[in-house]
Amino acid sequence: MREPPRSRAKGASLEERVSKEAQKGNQKAAKPVETAIKPTRAEDYAEWYQQVVRAADLAENSAVRGCMVIKPWGYALWERFQAELDAMFKATGHKNAYFPLFIPKSFLEKEAEHVDGFAKECAVVTHHRLIAGEGGGLIPDPKAKLEEPLIVRPTSETIIGASFAQWVRSYRDLPLLINQWANVVRWEMRTRLFLRTAEFLWQEGHTAHATREEAEIETRKMLEVYVKFATEYMAMPVHYGAKTKSERFPGAVETYSIEAMMQDKKALQAGTSHFLGQNFAKASGIRFQTKLETEEYAWTTSWGVSTRLVGALLMTHADDDGMIIPPRLAPAHVVVLPVLRGDETKAAVMDYVAQLKADLAKVRYHDRPIEVEVDARDIRGGEKNWDWIKKGVPLRVEVGPRDVESSAVMVSRRDRGPRDKTSMSREDFINGIVSMLDDMQNGLLQKALAYRAAASKTVTSREEFEAFFSGSDGGGFAFAHFSCDEKVENDLKERFKVTVRNIPEDVPSALVPGTCIFTGVPCDRQVLFAKSY
Amino acid sequence: MREPPRSRAKGASLEERVSKEAQKGNQKAAKPVETAIKPTRAEDYAEWYQQVVRAADLAENSAVRGCMVIKPWGYALWERFQAELDAMFKATGHKNAYFPLFIPKSFLEKEAEHVDGFAKECAVVTHHRLIAGEGGGLIPDPKAKLEEPLIVRPTSETIIGASFAQWVRSYRDLPLLINQWANVVRWEMRTRLFLRTAEFLWQEGHTAHATREEAEIETRKMLEVYVKFATEYMAMPVHYGAKTKSERFPGAVETYSIEAMMQDKKALQAGTSHFLGQNFAKASGIRFQTKLETEEYAWTTSWGVSTRLVGALLMTHADDDGMIIPPRLAPAHVVVLPVLRGDETKAAVMDYVAQLKADLAKVRYHDRPIEVEVDARDIRGGEKNWDWIKKGVPLRVEVGPRDVESSAVMVSRRDRGPRDKTSMSREDFINGIVSMLDDMQNGLLQKALAYRAAASKTVTSREEFEAFFSGSDGGGFAFAHFSCDEKVENDLKERFKVTVRNIPEDVPSALVPGTCIFTGVPCDRQVLFAKSY
Repeated sequence: MREPPRSRAKGASLEERVSKEAQKGNQKAAKPVETAIKPTRAEDYAEWYQQVVRAADLAENSAVRGCMVIKPWGYALWERFQAELDAMFKATGHKNAYFPLFIPKSFLEKEAEHVDGFAKECAVVTHHRLIAGEGGGLIPDPKAKLEEPLIVRPTSETIIGASFAQWVRSYRDLPLLINQWANVVRWEMRTRLFLRTAEFLWQEGHTAHATREEAEIETRKMLEVYVKFATEYMAMPVHYGAKTKSERFPGAVETYSIEAMMQDKKALQAGTSHFLGQNFAKASGIRFQTKLETEEYAWTTSWGVSTRLVGALLMTHADDDGMIIPPRLAPAHVVVLPVLRGDETKAAVMDYVAQLKADLAKVRYHDRPIEVEVDARDIRGGEKNWDWIKKGVPLRVEVGPRDVESSAVMVSRRDRGPRDKTSMSREDFINGIVSMLDDMQNGLLQKALAYRAAASKTVTSREEFEAFFSGSDGGGFAFAHFSCDEKVENDLKERFKVTVRNIPEDVPSALVPGTCIFTGVPCDRQVLFAKSY
Repeated sequence: MREPPRSRAKGASLEERVSKEAQKGNQKAAKPVETAIKPTRAEDYAEWYQQVVRAADLAENSAVRGCMVIKPWGYALWERFQAELDAMFKATGHKNAYFPLFIPKSFLEKEAEHVDGFAKECAVVTHHRLIAGEGGGLIPDPKAKLEEPLIVRPTSETIIGASFAQWVRSYRDLPLLINQWANVVRWEMRTRLFLRTAEFLWQEGHTAHATREEAEIETRKMLEVYVKFATEYMAMPVHYGAKTKSERFPGAVETYSIEAMMQDKKALQAGTSHFLGQNFAKASGIRFQTKLETEEYAWTTSWGVSTRLVGALLMTHADDDGMIIPPRLAPAHVVVLPVLRGDETKAAVMDYVAQLKADLAKVRYHDRPIEVEVDARDIRGGEKNWDWIKKGVPLRVEVGPRDVESSAVMVSRRDRGPRDKTSMSREDFINGIVSMLDDMQNGLLQKALAYRAAASKTVTSREEFEAFFSGSDGGGFAFAHFSCDEKVENDLKERFKVTVRNIPEDVPSALVPGTCIFTGVPCDRQVLFAKSY
């Protein structure tokens, strides 16, 4: 969105907008408040998503099919995700490393299910030189054709497996706990910024263990890390559990996922952790000598989250005025908007702002100094204010000459209405900022939990299931006993676009035996059904 | 290097080795001390380099031609480079963003010199799917051939230029100050770990400005950042200045470089900053409306350093026992080696070590807490000690039962001999660690400066030049007046493998007029000649 909503395009300040809306309110009580994002969620959810990405200046499509440009604000957000996740990976004993971008075709061929899963959508490098063609442009040089085509990594199990096979000799070399931050490419035909792009950024953990049990513990440990990150940092509640067979990672023995509900009631798979058994160890030759001097294949895992999480964050918290970033992931906790009304007060205001920024930097919020952006651009205050509403910074602080005189600040929270401003003393603001941010962080989580609860249902019959998912909205999350019959699963996918998201472990009411609502077969517990991204 | 030197392969502790060497010393005074790295620098420099990389466990070749695997210790080092550089870029007003991995062939074709420079060595993606071939293996699907081949980015001027053309409308949008951390691919035929690999990691800054002057200032500002980073963090002295025309970045108006002397007296180009004039702005259409409402092309710059710096760090400081990491870039400042001699003292030693680590974490060295690795592996002390010597950690600290009793530690510095150990009180160690690290950091810089000074010479005639570069060693750095005649430049390159590294600005004695030693033409100042990587 290059232009702010019309009422502000004419340069209306926030105050002016408020009074205009108040007037309008008197005239026509039913007229809705104008929103910064058009269309609204209710009007056109998919388009609303694109417009929030644009209004918050997070990313844009590039000239290269399916590849996005992550703009500075979007990348700063991703850097926050990286910093927190990286610390959690290191705290659980993992070390970062880097492996080649290219995978020899023959590597991909080693694991049968894996190649089926990825060969259909990969970028293939066939030449290593361009030369002038007859028409004048450049063409791949026929003399520089590669003997073996290279695949741009869609995921790195096979290329990392080749290294692990070199590194592991004995049980003493295990466990091997590695993580990689990298770009990967999957040739998607239909792409959407952050949610599904041909190239995306992610982290992929790859570990090798001496026993099945250890590898299973690792798989679950990293699932827990993802649950913690989603809940405590993203303020995004998730259901976690194993996938059904048809939704497993190609080549995995078991895939666990975290699933979050977006504001269109669809599920988004936000992270996965795979127990790979010995499949990839056998494909790559990761063998080790045991304590008993026998030789065995290692047990491996892999786990990853990607820039998709930025889309998930947006669809969990953003509203019809734009992005809302939970404080623990905000690139800036506070934006200060100096009100500059003439040269005589400018210096005093800017000095006051600089001191405020310095004092806030001494306050720590979850082990991080309070980070402050100062927006001193020479544009109208209303436009500036709305830019930061749309970008989703937790707190906006206006400082004008009168605030300087009275040692005050005017504070707005992004989780409250755009008109909601509170004047408070500078000291109260500084002393209270941590609890204000925590309150906002917690409020966002509670709101998301309530949204999810309202759109979740335990379904006890086929009829109820069909009614739940046949409405005009997304339906929501349905918990039901299901025998995981693949034929039924395919049928539900075709007819309702509904899939089993996972077999949740965090929902007490789902952990009870019952009979499958489709086949009548007895089942240990319920699964989670939803439409999904 | 999987095996330590023979004297330790049998499990000799450091102490045993020392006494053996002392005995040998008595018997045969001339016999050289055994080194951890074989061959030594003097014996075979190129092989020594590979062996240090291997012994320090920094990186290794992969199954993919020319692509390296950066191992955890090497990657941790690169993360330190990134952290410090990133902070310097942000402090100078730059923001990170991310652009596509792929560049449409047509983009590369837009800038004539640029395409000449990069088309010959690029990875070309031609298909987006593999299918089963007749022989059973996979082949690129002929039906999935791309209409326009994609190039894996060798550098991103053209693809970032396309975004800048969208982002810049008016002078108010300038300057645009962007940096990207990314992987790039240049299809090199002869590769060496870190120094020259087909894929490497780097940062590339890209900026756009309203005036030529501003862009020139930016180019030099980032050159200064690189000089500061090389000198103050890498402890690697560099000469900085403009390149001659033949060595410029393809498409640049002016290229500045920093050049460091390696221990074989060759130069290594460690970073470049390019003033691109309006060449790329014209190629990409980066136009803006000026204050006077005229339309103009922007002025752009780009600048980058890469994982090559890890190789440069190695060749500046490593010795015949392995890597030496300057404290300001060390992933760990200290490694603690607990001496565990039986179960009854083990708990006491490990408690003491944990407390030491906690107390050191409270000490800050250049705004970073002291980072401590504890190596409690159950292997012989001598082997453990040598592992960390080879990895180049600044300080090694042994803690045994007697140290616990006397509240002492046994400290070894990596910049001193492997036998050099000092017992000191725990308190003295903690209180003195910052100055010890600073002393080491400064000592490494002084040593490198001295090495460079000893191998640098002002050359005043062709005969002197030829003698300087005809010896069996690399010659070194020669400063001479040179008219930058391209024919002479090519001739020197062919006959002596010597090139003009840059026209240094930091050497007062080079900033004087004189006459070209080859052509007799008057010149403003001297250039820097050297063999190079």
